[in-house]
Amino acid sequence: MGHYVSFQDELKLRTDMTEEVIRKFLPREEGFAKSMAEAMNYSMCAGGKRLRPLLLMETCRMFGGDLSVAEPFMAAMEMIHTHSLIHDDLPAIDNDDYRRGRLTTHKVYGEAMGVLSGVALLNYAYETMLTAFDIAPENSGIIEAVRIMAHKTGLYGMLGGQSVDVENDGKPVSKDMLDYIYRHKTSALLEAAMMAGAVIAGADKEQTAVIEQAAEKIGLAFQIQDDILDVTSTSEELGKPVHSDEKNHKTTYVTLFGLREASHQVAVLSEEAIELLDSIDQKNEFLKDLIRYLVSRRK
Amino acid sequence: MGHYVSFQDELKLRTDMTEEVIRKFLPREEGFAKSMAEAMNYSMCAGGKRLRPLLLMETCRMFGGDLSVAEPFMAAMEMIHTHSLIHDDLPAIDNDDYRRGRLTTHKVYGEAMGVLSGVALLNYAYETMLTAFDIAPENSGIIEAVRIMAHKTGLYGMLGGQSVDVENDGKPVSKDMLDYIYRHKTSALLEAAMMAGAVIAGADKEQTAVIEQAAEKIGLAFQIQDDILDVTSTSEELGKPVHSDEKNHKTTYVTLFGLREASHQVAVLSEEAIELLDSIDQKNEFLKDLIRYLVSRRK
Repeated sequence: MGHYVSFQDELKLRTDMTEEVIRKFLPREEGFAKSMAEAMNYSMCAGGKRLRPLLLMETCRMFGGDLSVAEPFMAAMEMIHTHSLIHDDLPAIDNDDYRRGRLTTHKVYGEAMGVLSGVALLNYAYETMLTAFDIAPENSGIIEAVRIMAHKTGLYGMLGGQSVDVENDGKPVSKDMLDYIYRHKTSALLEAAMMAGAVIAGADKEQTAVIEQAAEKIGLAFQIQDDILDVTSTSEELGKPVHSDEKNHKTTYVTLFGLREASHQVAVLSEEAIELLDSIDQKNEFLKDLIRYLVSRRK
Repeated sequence: MGHYVSFQDELKLRTDMTEEVIRKFLPREEGFAKSMAEAMNYSMCAGGKRLRPLLLMETCRMFGGDLSVAEPFMAAMEMIHTHSLIHDDLPAIDNDDYRRGRLTTHKVYGEAMGVLSGVALLNYAYETMLTAFDIAPENSGIIEAVRIMAHKTGLYGMLGGQSVDVENDGKPVSKDMLDYIYRHKTSALLEAAMMAGAVIAGADKEQTAVIEQAAEKIGLAFQIQDDILDVTSTSEELGKPVHSDEKNHKTTYVTLFGLREASHQVAVLSEEAIELLDSIDQKNEFLKDLIRYLVSRRK
């Protein structure tokens, strides 16, 4: 897996591959509910790093899994993530009119459709991942992968984290609560992606537990890096307003510990994640490079 | 299955049983995300006919299935239904402050939590139904049941129907579109309930298709009866405002065809549904009585 010349070229290649997989599973825009399908696809085609499906594919590859079984899960992963962005942008939550330079879903299709198409995308993620049974009915990892995706998405995962974040908006947040929010709002879906990729490929319980720990650390490092970029980057680099955390009186790793300690945490967490991956017999050099890239990104 | 003295007593007994099943699967209210669990449970414990889980249980019973496998699906069914009610009541959709005499979820927990706890309830439905694999890992109907639930809930089912209903709010609606809305917004979840109950119990493809047709007709009859009650009932009987369709210039079966023809349609559809059930070798007299009761209800 380490046989590539340039990481950037390889990343471009694999991101394009991921993009193709995602588009393959989008709903068709037809019939009475055409607008709903359009709203779902509008948000799905808004670009982005496609990080979660990439991590899913690369973890599946690490364990020598069948990528054709991973494909519906890759698309589903991005649907779940995108659903959370649509809802985040709603007037009742962050009230954002723009995301990645385009009008947000509720600005284009109305608020009711913003709520409903977000939900429809989450539900379509389940419809999509369940098609994996058609590809490999004998693969017992599929049921386990669906259960992991559900658990990490819901009350005990991302949505739980979202709810605590929203409830404590503008209030002082303790280190414990901040860790809870980051572990759920951000890490949970990375855990889902990497664990699903692993179990589809037949990883055993111990290996999957190590993958879960690694993904949790990657998620934390990724989120703290976000906190850092909000302070150190320019809005041109980032493509969104900077210093928004300060303006919103938001507690972050930077406000709690300062820039230097936050940067140190990112380095420590990402090295720990890579050590965890190294402790597993199966290897994927690209996956490790991807993690290093994610936590050192400038946008 | 026909050995009961009073339908009303038996209905009370089986509804209580359903209520117990639902409560068994509710999330615990603890940890940082306690409020989200509270919001989910608040809406789940608001009462109601528990029609969908009842239909699921009785169809499973009809085919001699193991009710312990049906239980997580019964709870999941009510979670999916309740999620749609929470979102229906949101300011962006119907903007209702009360449902069944209690404040709606977003009025108690705020609009952001209204959106998020509705989604969390839908997602928890998946977490819940997937626990059926722990009860009967060898039951191949479980995967099929999960797929049916997902399909009937989403873009091609209830959510698709909701989106068309919301989009055409206050506009004149054709007979074709009204049928689409009723078949998706209302029938789809009844189809999911009865089909899931059937496949869990090992019903074959042909039997399941007949069940689907019967459930579609029951849903249509149920919805048209709703239209009729809005015109003929009093708000005391119904527990909600009457004549709301007229006030909102809503196209219904009554506005399109008149009261007499709408009532005739209810009778025809419910008799057709019962004939379909009669065409199957396996019998459940209570299920047929339940259908007759639903379409002749006064509230």
